Amino acid sequence: MALTLLRRKCVAGTDRAEGSDDTLVTGPVVVLIEPQLGENIGMAARAMMNCGLTDMRLVKPRDEWPNQYAEAAASGATMVIERARVYDTTEAAIADLQMVYATTARSRDMTTEVVTPREAVVRMKKDETCGVRSGVMFGKEAKGLKNDDVALANSILTVPLNPVFTSLNLAQAVFALGYEWFQLGTETEDAVLAIPKETRLANKMELQGLFDHLETELDDSGFFHVLEKKPTMVRNIRNVLQRARFTEQEVRTFRGIITSLVKKRKS
Amino acid sequence: MALTLLRRKCVAGTDRAEGSDDTLVTGPVVVLIEPQLGENIGMAARAMMNCGLTDMRLVKPRDEWPNQYAEAAASGATMVIERARVYDTTEAAIADLQMVYATTARSRDMTTEVVTPREAVVRMKKDETCGVRSGVMFGKEAKGLKNDDVALANSILTVPLNPVFTSLNLAQAVFALGYEWFQLGTETEDAVLAIPKETRLANKMELQGLFDHLETELDDSGFFHVLEKKPTMVRNIRNVLQRARFTEQEVRTFRGIITSLVKKRKS
Repeated sequence: MALTLLRRKCVAGTDRAEGSDDTLVTGPVVVLIEPQLGENIGMAARAMMNCGLTDMRLVKPRDEWPNQYAEAAASGATMVIERARVYDTTEAAIADLQMVYATTARSRDMTTEVVTPREAVVRMKKDETCGVRSGVMFGKEAKGLKNDDVALANSILTVPLNPVFTSLNLAQAVFALGYEWFQLGTETEDAVLAIPKETRLANKMELQGLFDHLETELDDSGFFHVLEKKPTMVRNIRNVLQRARFTEQEVRTFRGIITSLVKKRKS
Repeated sequence: MALTLLRRKCVAGTDRAEGSDDTLVTGPVVVLIEPQLGENIGMAARAMMNCGLTDMRLVKPRDEWPNQYAEAAASGATMVIERARVYDTTEAAIADLQMVYATTARSRDMTTEVVTPREAVVRMKKDETCGVRSGVMFGKEAKGLKNDDVALANSILTVPLNPVFTSLNLAQAVFALGYEWFQLGTETEDAVLAIPKETRLANKMELQGLFDHLETELDDSGFFHVLEKKPTMVRNIRNVLQRARFTEQEVRTFRGIITSLVKKRKS
């Protein structure tokens, strides 16, 4: 039933079974066209691996391949480097892909759809569920893509950047794509409170114990000498301590601090 | 009136007027703690400039400062490098900031809130409207931040990444933050059709002219020899041409193509 629904949403002729040998690979293919420095290829591979992308293709890399600088700069993303395939033409590198995006910062004298990485990855994900594989072409460091390569793409992909400084390092451009791709798939919470295993957030009884302890000692020390101000002061102190979200361990630490300070005064 | 409303939303004691000399600077401060390679500082500066961030601070950089490798790697983001300030301690570097985030990939044995870059920039933007300045600390390349530095932060900032390969290049970490910051401020459309100035999208009359032209010539050439199939075929051809979103110029080009093909056949 679910499969029927899935198939119905997919474009005809792009059935999953067709791309059988690549079924396990997910995410867009990264196509570097005429990359110059091995180091940049390596850094791009590292950025890909950071984001769970593994399929890198190189069209006419300037220097020899395999390349020791690429391997060094990959900083452990060896798998991406080792699996990278080299092609003589852009056409050959993208032949098996159904959707291709061309990254460019410059506007081209062409009628082409321009999408952000955030929008592009949503499309790629949707396409992937239908067995449609996407690739993103990145041009050489200094000049970017040639218009002839851009014309092979379905859409232009432009990273929204500071308009007076749009020139992006190759690995950063790859990272912008990969980063958005990974964010789409991850279920990371926007914000969580990380707590060491051996403790937990304090409950309100424990916190009340801390408040009582502190307020009793403050009473005792004459802190609340203007009595009509006491309710407000107590409320303020409790507020700030509530905001800190104490763990049970921290409550104990702070009660120890109070005891210790009092002892010094009393001795 | 608007000002009153704004003030009411802001935390007490963080009035805009206080940070008078920095009023024009927007976005989080980038604090690099004990950075090792000048090249990485430069690449981080370039990433900042790409994203419109300009306030970089360095705590005990390993090599001398100013640093020629930093300048070269900044690839034109000279302004960021020239304005960078050097400090002896983390405390001094963050003294004027009210909110500080510590970037780390490793989980620490501390009770601290962990936020994503996407969530963090939303908070920073909101804080900024109240005159609260935020900073993000990045540790040295090999080891990241020390726990003592993390303890100075309000929250931990962790970039969601491939769990088996989380080690991010310094400039990439800075870029992940800056990228999210810039996306928040930009009004870039997710997808637009870029069209060269000298043309515009074709209107339906122009497109109908193309359809009529093509279908007449196809009729003439005997293309629709199975007459009952003609309506479906016409519909399919129109569909695919509609999808391409022709410009007025492209309509003319395609009518020229039809004429040319017909001429060849007729001659």
